[in-house]
Amino acid sequence: MWLFSLTEDMPERQAFSSLDGELLLIPQAGALDIQTELGKLMVRQNEICIIPRGVRHRITLPGGQPCRGYICELHQGHFRLPDLGIVGSTGLANVRDFQIPMAFFDGSLSDGGKVARANNNEWKIVSRLGGRLWSCTQSHTPFDVAGWHGTCYPYKYDLARFCVLGNALFDEHDPSLFVVLTAPNYAAEPGTAVMDFAIVSPRWNVAEDTYWLPYWHRNTMQEFFGPIISNQSPEYPFSSEKTGHQFAPFAAGLHGSMSTHGATEADYQAAQKRDTHKPAKVQTNGLNIFLMETDKPLALSDWAFNCATKNPAGRPKM
Amino acid sequence: MWLFSLTEDMPERQAFSSLDGELLLIPQAGALDIQTELGKLMVRQNEICIIPRGVRHRITLPGGQPCRGYICELHQGHFRLPDLGIVGSTGLANVRDFQIPMAFFDGSLSDGGKVARANNNEWKIVSRLGGRLWSCTQSHTPFDVAGWHGTCYPYKYDLARFCVLGNALFDEHDPSLFVVLTAPNYAAEPGTAVMDFAIVSPRWNVAEDTYWLPYWHRNTMQEFFGPIISNQSPEYPFSSEKTGHQFAPFAAGLHGSMSTHGATEADYQAAQKRDTHKPAKVQTNGLNIFLMETDKPLALSDWAFNCATKNPAGRPKM
Amino acid sequence: MWLFSLTEDMPERQAFSSLDGELLLIPQAGALDIQTELGKLMVRQNEICIIPRGVRHRITLPGGQPCRGYICELHQGHFRLPDLGIVGSTGLANVRDFQIPMAFFDGSLSDGGKVARANNNEWKIVSRLGGRLWSCTQSHTPFDVAGWHGTCYPYKYDLARFCVLGNALFDEHDPSLFVVLTAPNYAAEPGTAVMDFAIVSPRWNVAEDTYWLPYWHRNTMQEFFGPIISNQSPEYPFSSEKTGHQFAPFAAGLHGSMSTHGATEADYQAAQKRDTHKPAKVQTNGLNIFLMETDKPLALSDWAFNCATKNPAGRPKM
Amino acid sequence: MWLFSLTEDMPERQAFSSLDGELLLIPQAGALDIQTELGKLMVRQNEICIIPRGVRHRITLPGGQPCRGYICELHQGHFRLPDLGIVGSTGLANVRDFQIPMAFFDGSLSDGGKVARANNNEWKIVSRLGGRLWSCTQSHTPFDVAGWHGTCYPYKYDLARFCVLGNALFDEHDPSLFVVLTAPNYAAEPGTAVMDFAIVSPRWNVAEDTYWLPYWHRNTMQEFFGPIISNQSPEYPFSSEKTGHQFAPFAAGLHGSMSTHGATEADYQAAQKRDTHKPAKVQTNGLNIFLMETDKPLALSDWAFNCATKNPAGRPKM
Amino acid sequence: MWLFSLTEDMPERQAFSSLDGELLLIPQAGALDIQTELGKLMVRQNEICIIPRGVRHRITLPGGQPCRGYICELHQGHFRLPDLGIVGSTGLANVRDFQIPMAFFDGSLSDGGKVARANNNEWKIVSRLGGRLWSCTQSHTPFDVAGWHGTCYPYKYDLARFCVLGNALFDEHDPSLFVVLTAPNYAAEPGTAVMDFAIVSPRWNVAEDTYWLPYWHRNTMQEFFGPIISNQSPEYPFSSEKTGHQFAPFAAGLHGSMSTHGATEADYQAAQKRDTHKPAKVQTNGLNIFLMETDKPLALSDWAFNCATKNPAGRPKM
Amino acid sequence: MWLFSLTEDMPERQAFSSLDGELLLIPQAGALDIQTELGKLMVRQNEICIIPRGVRHRITLPGGQPCRGYICELHQGHFRLPDLGIVGSTGLANVRDFQIPMAFFDGSLSDGGKVARANNNEWKIVSRLGGRLWSCTQSHTPFDVAGWHGTCYPYKYDLARFCVLGNALFDEHDPSLFVVLTAPNYAAEPGTAVMDFAIVSPRWNVAEDTYWLPYWHRNTMQEFFGPIISNQSPEYPFSSEKTGHQFAPFAAGLHGSMSTHGATEADYQAAQKRDTHKPAKVQTNGLNIFLMETDKPLALSDWAFNCATKNPAGRPKM
Repeated sequence: MWLFSLTEDMPERQAFSSLDGELLLIPQAGALDIQTELGKLMVRQNEICIIPRGVRHRITLPGGQPCRGYICELHQGHFRLPDLGIVGSTGLANVRDFQIPMAFFDGSLSDGGKVARANNNEWKIVSRLGGRLWSCTQSHTPFDVAGWHGTCYPYKYDLARFCVLGNALFDEHDPSLFVVLTAPNYAAEPGTAVMDFAIVSPRWNVAEDTYWLPYWHRNTMQEFFGPIISNQSPEYPFSSEKTGHQFAPFAAGLHGSMSTHGATEADYQAAQKRDTHKPAKVQTNGLNIFLMETDKPLALSDWAFNCATKNPAGRPKM
Repeated sequence: MWLFSLTEDMPERQAFSSLDGELLLIPQAGALDIQTELGKLMVRQNEICIIPRGVRHRITLPGGQPCRGYICELHQGHFRLPDLGIVGSTGLANVRDFQIPMAFFDGSLSDGGKVARANNNEWKIVSRLGGRLWSCTQSHTPFDVAGWHGTCYPYKYDLARFCVLGNALFDEHDPSLFVVLTAPNYAAEPGTAVMDFAIVSPRWNVAEDTYWLPYWHRNTMQEFFGPIISNQSPEYPFSSEKTGHQFAPFAAGLHGSMSTHGATEADYQAAQKRDTHKPAKVQTNGLNIFLMETDKPLALSDWAFNCATKNPAGRPKM
Repeated sequence: MWLFSLTEDMPERQAFSSLDGELLLIPQAGALDIQTELGKLMVRQNEICIIPRGVRHRITLPGGQPCRGYICELHQGHFRLPDLGIVGSTGLANVRDFQIPMAFFDGSLSDGGKVARANNNEWKIVSRLGGRLWSCTQSHTPFDVAGWHGTCYPYKYDLARFCVLGNALFDEHDPSLFVVLTAPNYAAEPGTAVMDFAIVSPRWNVAEDTYWLPYWHRNTMQEFFGPIISNQSPEYPFSSEKTGHQFAPFAAGLHGSMSTHGATEADYQAAQKRDTHKPAKVQTNGLNIFLMETDKPLALSDWAFNCATKNPAGRPKM
Repeated sequence: MWLFSLTEDMPERQAFSSLDGELLLIPQAGALDIQTELGKLMVRQNEICIIPRGVRHRITLPGGQPCRGYICELHQGHFRLPDLGIVGSTGLANVRDFQIPMAFFDGSLSDGGKVARANNNEWKIVSRLGGRLWSCTQSHTPFDVAGWHGTCYPYKYDLARFCVLGNALFDEHDPSLFVVLTAPNYAAEPGTAVMDFAIVSPRWNVAEDTYWLPYWHRNTMQEFFGPIISNQSPEYPFSSEKTGHQFAPFAAGLHGSMSTHGATEADYQAAQKRDTHKPAKVQTNGLNIFLMETDKPLALSDWAFNCATKNPAGRPKM
Repeated sequence: MWLFSLTEDMPERQAFSSLDGELLLIPQAGALDIQTELGKLMVRQNEICIIPRGVRHRITLPGGQPCRGYICELHQGHFRLPDLGIVGSTGLANVRDFQIPMAFFDGSLSDGGKVARANNNEWKIVSRLGGRLWSCTQSHTPFDVAGWHGTCYPYKYDLARFCVLGNALFDEHDPSLFVVLTAPNYAAEPGTAVMDFAIVSPRWNVAEDTYWLPYWHRNTMQEFFGPIISNQSPEYPFSSEKTGHQFAPFAAGLHGSMSTHGATEADYQAAQKRDTHKPAKVQTNGLNIFLMETDKPLALSDWAFNCATKNPAGRPKM
Repeated sequence: MWLFSLTEDMPERQAFSSLDGELLLIPQAGALDIQTELGKLMVRQNEICIIPRGVRHRITLPGGQPCRGYICELHQGHFRLPDLGIVGSTGLANVRDFQIPMAFFDGSLSDGGKVARANNNEWKIVSRLGGRLWSCTQSHTPFDVAGWHGTCYPYKYDLARFCVLGNALFDEHDPSLFVVLTAPNYAAEPGTAVMDFAIVSPRWNVAEDTYWLPYWHRNTMQEFFGPIISNQSPEYPFSSEKTGHQFAPFAAGLHGSMSTHGATEADYQAAQKRDTHKPAKVQTNGLNIFLMETDKPLALSDWAFNCATKNPAGRPKM
C-alpha cells in the first residue's frame, strides 16, 4: 500500500500501468482526464477512480490546472462494495452510481505504425513492477480498443452520491457504516479488510441524548485521513474553532495502529454545551473527509521524510 | 404462524407451554407478569418477550389491569438478531439490552407434593401441540428450578432501546433496517426469513430532497402491522390528519403478499408540500409500530371472522 | 410448477401477472410480443423469456401469427445462471447475451383517467394467486413506467447464443453441462435445484471410442423435454430414422422420476455401427431440444387428460 | 515453488523426503520407479506423481534409462481436484483414475537391524527443510510398512485419462477447463489458486466461426509450460510449421505475470486461412503440454543462470 | 419416514426397490442375505445396511432362520457421516469400516431371455412409489451387473466397530456423540437433521462426581429406540432390575417430541448409591441400543394400531 | 509467536500492553495478580489467562511468591473455542467456565492528576510494538475504568474445568480432542490453526484392546509442551519410571515440524505388558500437560541460547 501525491501531467505518447496492484485515485483539488485502454474518465474533485492492475492509462490535467491528491495501490485483490447485511439492497454506495468508460480508439491502424517509426513518434509504455519502473517503446498507440465487454474495467464514483446512513434517534454506529469500497482480507477473520476506503461526508446528526464526538479509543487499524475539499470544516476531526486550530491546506492525519485518539479537550467542552435535541447538519460546506483504514504497516518514504525535515515550515510546499 | 390477542389471566395453579413453537409476545396495552420455569419476566407496554418452545409459564396481570396484544408462534427455528453487515458491531437491537430472568423457585419440595394432593391443589399443565390444547395434572409446582445455565431461555427486550438507523442525507433505505429479530429461512435464498419482527419507531427524518413516504409497491411478503401504544400517530401508515382518517384503538393492518400498497393520495399531497430540507422527528408521541413480515400465508380464524361479521361496528369489542 | 401451452392473444386493455411465481416462456413456434411494466420484449422462436413474479404484462402475436410453446411457473425463488466452477468465467449462457427491456410508457396521464371511465375503456388486471385467477379494473394503463432501475426485471435470451461445451476427446459429461438457467433448491443438498432449464443444442460430437447415446438409466428427477423447432432431428431422443419413428409436431416427452430410460434398441444398433473416430455435428438442422428437470411431482391437468382421452385424433401419433 | 530437472538415480540405501512441501513430479522422458513408505509407484512418461510432505521415498530409473522432467514443491496446502461446478460429477480428471500404492515392506525385522550395523549397511535419510538438505542414518530400512490406511498418501495419474472438455459449437472457454489439480489459495479470493497444474492435451477443436488461437492477453499469473513428449506438435504455442520455428527438445516457456503474450503473426496468418467449419483434432501426435500457473514470483536459480550463460551450446536454440 | 418389521423372505424371481427413499435396515435378530444390483451383502445382527433409492434388491433369510428388525425409509437426501469437528479425523464410525459389495452377476445373457419367457420364469419387479406398491415383469434377471464404479451404492456397517467416545473425567456429553449416520436437514438451522441414527453401545463410564443417568428432559425430537440384541440389558433406559420392570423381547420405546422423559425413581435411587469413583463398563452383555431421532411427526399405521388393540397382551405376536 | 518465562513483578506505577498481539499466560508455579483496564484477575497455577492486544495491565505476585510460566503472543487474530461438531453443545472447555473481570477503578479523578505530578508519581506506560518496547508517562492511573461492556476483554480459565472426552471402548482419538482454545488460520485450509492451545489432563483411559501410547509419528506442526504442575507424572511423554528418566522441574519439550516422535522403547515394553482390559486413571497426581501447536517456525532467542550454552548448570538435566 502506497500513498503519494500527483502534481504533474504524464508526458505525451507515454502510457503507464501498475502491474503491482489496483489503483485508487482520490483527487483533492483539480481534476484528472484519464485516458485508459477501455476509454476515458474525467475525474473531478470529490470523485474517485479505480484503475485495475495492468490497465494502461495516460493522465492529463484539464485546462492545465494542477491537481493534487492521493493514490492507493492495492497489492492484493480488488476493491469491491461491502456486503450490506441488514442495510438491505440499497444504501451507501449503490451499483448504479458507478460510471464505466465507453471504448475510445484514438489512433489509426491503417499504416501499420510506419509513420510513427519514421517520425520517431513511438509510444513509451511505463510499467511499475515490484515497486520499480520499467519502460519499453512501441510504434502504435496503446489506446487502440474499439469496443469491449467484461467485468474488469476502470470506473469512477462521485462521492456526493454516497447515500450515508446514520443513527436516527440516539447512540453512535460503527464508522464501518461510512465504507465506500473495501478490499476484503481473506487471510484473516471474516469481516476484516486489507484496505477500507471510507468517507465522512456531509450529513444530518440527529442522535438525541448522545455525545456527538468520537470517544477516545485505540484499535488495530492504521487510519489515514484527509479532507477532499480544501476549505476545511470547523468540525472534528480536522480543527476546532473553539481552540483556533485549523489544518493547513491539503493536510492529512494518521492515527497509527493502537495509538489512542479522539476529540480534544476543547472539542469535548464544545460538545458538552451542544444541544443534542436539535438536529444539526454537519460538514455543511460540502466537505468530504476520506479515510483509508488498513492493518498493514505504513512507512514514510525518503522523499516525504526529507520534505518534512528540510522544510522548517513543517510541511511540503505545493 | 398464529396471531391472536391475550385478554385474560391464566388460572391459578395452571401453567402453559407451546410445544409447537417459540412464542413472541407483544403487549400493546397493560403489562404481563410472566413466571417461567427459568424465572420471572415483567413485560410492559413497548417491551417484547420471547418464550422458547416447551418452556412452561404462567401469565398474570399486574394490578389486575387488562393487557392486550399479539402473540406470534414461530413453528420453525428460533428468533435471533440479524447479521449487521456493514452496520458494524453495534446498532439496532444490541445484545446487551436483552434481559434474561434469574431462577425463581416458588414452591417447597419438603413434603414431596403430599399436601397438594390432599388439598386437591394439583397443578394443571396445559400444552399446545399440533395446534390443539392438551392437559395433565401434577402434584407439585412446575416452577421448581433453583438455578440454571444454558443458551435456550426466555428473554425480554425494551423496544425503546432499539437504536434505529436512518438515511443521514438523502434517499430511503430498505425497511430491513428496522428489523429487531429475525427467524432465518434456511430453505430459501440467503437473506430471507420465515418471520421478521421489525419496529417503525420514533426517529429523526433528515433525508433531503427525498419524498418521505413509502412509494407505492408490491412484494412477496405478508406485512402485518399495528401500533403498540394506543394513541395513534398522525403519520403514515396509520392515518392522515389531512384526510380525517384515524385508526380505531388497537387497529391493525395487513398488506397481503403481492398486493400493492403505499401512501394515500392525501398523504401524498401533504408530503409534496413538506419542507424536506428541515429535519423532522416523526412519531414524536413515542409510538412504536410493530411489523411482522412473513412469506407464509396468513388466514383469518373462525373466531376473528365471526367477530368481524357479527359485529356491525366492524371490529371486535374490547 | 405448471406447464401449459399458449395459443391466443390476450384481450385488449387487459394485463396479466402471476403472483404465484416467476414465469419462464418457451415459444416453440411463432413469436410473442410482450409488453411489460418495464418495457417491451419481442420473443421469437428459439428465444426464452423470464417475467418475474408480479410483473404485469400483455402478450400479443406479431402479424397475428399463432404461437405455441410452454410456460414454467416457478413457485419458489428465481432462475439464475449456474455457478460455472472450473469452466471459468465465460461459457454456456453468458451474462452479456441476456437482453433487458427499456422503459416504455404507452399511455397518457393528462386526463387522470376520466376519459377511460367515460368510454368504458377501463383496463382489466388479471392476477393469478394460489393457482386461481382474480381480476379488477382500473381507469389507466398499467404500462405507465417512464424509467426504472433495479435488479428484478423481465429479460429474454436467444438460445442460439448458448456456448455449449462438450467432451473434446473421449467419454461423456453430465447433462448438467447443458443447463441454461437454474432455480437452486436451498432446502436440499448443495448442488440440487427446484428446476433446471437446459437445452440440448446443435453441437459437434467428437468423443472418440465413446458410445454416443445416453445409457439406460434412472434417477430422481422428472425430465420433461420437447423440440423448440418443429422439424425434428433424426437424432435421439426424439426419433430414429433407422426405425422409422418420428415425433408428431409439438410432441413432448416425460421421463418420470426413477423410471428407466435411454436409447432404443434400434438407436443402439445404429450407434454400434457408427464411426466414432470421425467428428459429427448433431442436430444440424438447428433444432434445440429444451429440457426441464425438477424433483417435484408433475401431474396431468384435467384439461390435458380430457384432450388426450376424448380426442384420439388430437393426440400425437407415436 | 521450485522447478528443476531430475537426471540421476538416488544412491543405494538412501531415502529422501521434502519436509517443506508436497511434491508434484512430471517426467517428460523416461520413467521413475518410486519406492515410498506407503508402497511403490512406477511413473511413466505422460503420468504425474504426487508425494506428500514428509513421505520418504527412493527413486530409481527402470532399465537404467535416464529420465527428465520437472518437480513442483508446493510449500502450502495440498493439491486437489478442482470443483467442477456446472460440469457435474464426472469429467476432467476423475477420482477413479488416480492410482494409490499398496504397502510394500522390503526388509526384514527379524534381526533388529544388527546385520545392517555390522556390515556398515546403514540407511541414509536425507530431508529437505527450509530449502536445505539434512541427513541422518539409521540401521534399518525406512520402507518397513506392512499395511496402512488413511487419506494422506502418494498417488499417480495417467494424463491420457484426462477427459478434456471443449466448446462444442462456437467460442472459446477459459483455460481453467484444462486444470488437472489445483492448490487453492485460501488467503485470496475464492476461486484463486497458489498453483494450478493443467494440461493442454490432444483433443478435437470444433468451435465454428471461432478464431482458434489464444488472443493476445496479459494477466496476473506466471505461466510456466512445456511439452511432456519430446516430438513437438506443430500447434501453438510451441511452434509453427508455417514459420519454421520449432522448440528444441525439452524446451519450456514462461509467460511472466502481466507480460502480454499470444499467438505470433505467422500463427495468426495461418489461423485466418483455416477452415473453422471443419473439425480438427489438434496435438494429434499425442503431445501433452503441461502448464503450471501461479501468482507467486518465479526466480532463476544460480545453477540455471550459469547453465544458460556459461554454456551457450547447452541453451535451446529458438 | 416409516418404521416396520420384516418377517418374511421375498418371493423367488422377485426384486424390490423403494423409489421414495433410501432404506436403512436394522436387523434385531437373525440375518439378511441381500442381493442388490451392485452385489451381495450379508447383514447380520448388530450390523446395519443402507440401500439407496431405486436400487433393486432381493432379500432372503440365511438358513431359513427368521429375521426381525426395523427399516427407516428416508424420503429426503442421503445418510452420511456427521462432521467430527474437534474430534479430529477419526473416531465414531470410521469410513474404513463401511463395507461395499462387489458386483455379482447371477444370470446368463446368452439366450436373450427366451428361456425365461418360454418357462414362464419371468422376474417380477416391485417398486414403491408415493407410498404404494407397483409391479411389472421382465424376462431377465435385474441382477445383471458385471462391474461398476460410482458413489451411490448399498453398504453395511458393523455396529461393534463404532469407536464410541465419552467423558474421560467428569460431566456428561451430548448424546449427539453417539450418532453413527445422519441425514442433514438443509431446510433448517445448520446442525439439525431430518434423521439421526445413533447407537448407545457397550462402553466404559468413568465420569467422576457425575450422576450417570440421563436427567429428566424434553426436546423437539422424536426419539424412537430399541435393543438390537434380544437379551435386554439391566441398564437404563430399557428396564431396571431394582423395580422388576423388563421389556418384552423386541420391545421398542418412543419419546415423543417435547414429552418429558428420563430415568425412573428406582433408577435414580440406584444411581444415587452408585460409586462414581470406580469405572464401570455398561451394557456389558454386548447390547447395542439403536436410536432414531427425527423432528418429523411419527404416526401409528393402521396395522400396528390393530395389532395393539386387538391383542390384549398388548403387543404384536411374532 | 513468542515463548518466554516471567519471573519478576512489574514495577510500581507501571503498566504494560502488547500492541503486537493477544497474550496467553500459562503460570506453571505460583500465581499472578493481574490488574487490567477492565478489572482484576487472580490467575493461579493450572489456570490460564488471555489479555487482548492493547489492554494495559500490571502484574504482581501474591504474597511475593515467585511465579514461572509461559506467554504466547498471538500476532494474528484471536483465541477462541473450537467448533465442537458432533461433540454437541457442551464438552471440553465450556463457555460458562471462563471468568471475566468486573470493572475496578483504583484511582481518584478529583484532583485531575495534579498530585501525581507534584509528587513525581507519574505512571509509566510500556508498550510492545514491532517486537520492541516503548514507554511514555502519564499523570494519572491507566486503571480508571468504572464500568464497561463489550466483547473484547481479558479472561481466565481454570484448566481443571476442562471436560475431557476420550474413547469409551477402544481405539484412540485425534489429539485435537484436547484443544482448549484455537486461533484459526484463515489463510490455509479450513480446520487449520495458527496456534492451538491444548491440555493433556488427568483422565480415565478405558480403551480396550488398544495400545495406549502415542504411536511413532511425524506431522507438520511444531509441538511445544510442558507440565504445569512441577511434580511430574510417571506417564508419557515426560518420563518413564521403567527407564529411570525424569524431567527436571519446569522442563519443556519440542517436537519440531516433521521430526518423528513417540513413546520410547521402555515405554513400549511397559505398555505391551499393560492390562488394557482394566480402566486406568492417568496423570493421577493432577498434572496437566499443556501443548502449544503451531505451523509457524519457532526460533531460540539469544537470551535462551546464552542461558543454555554459557550456564551448563542452569540447564535442565535430561
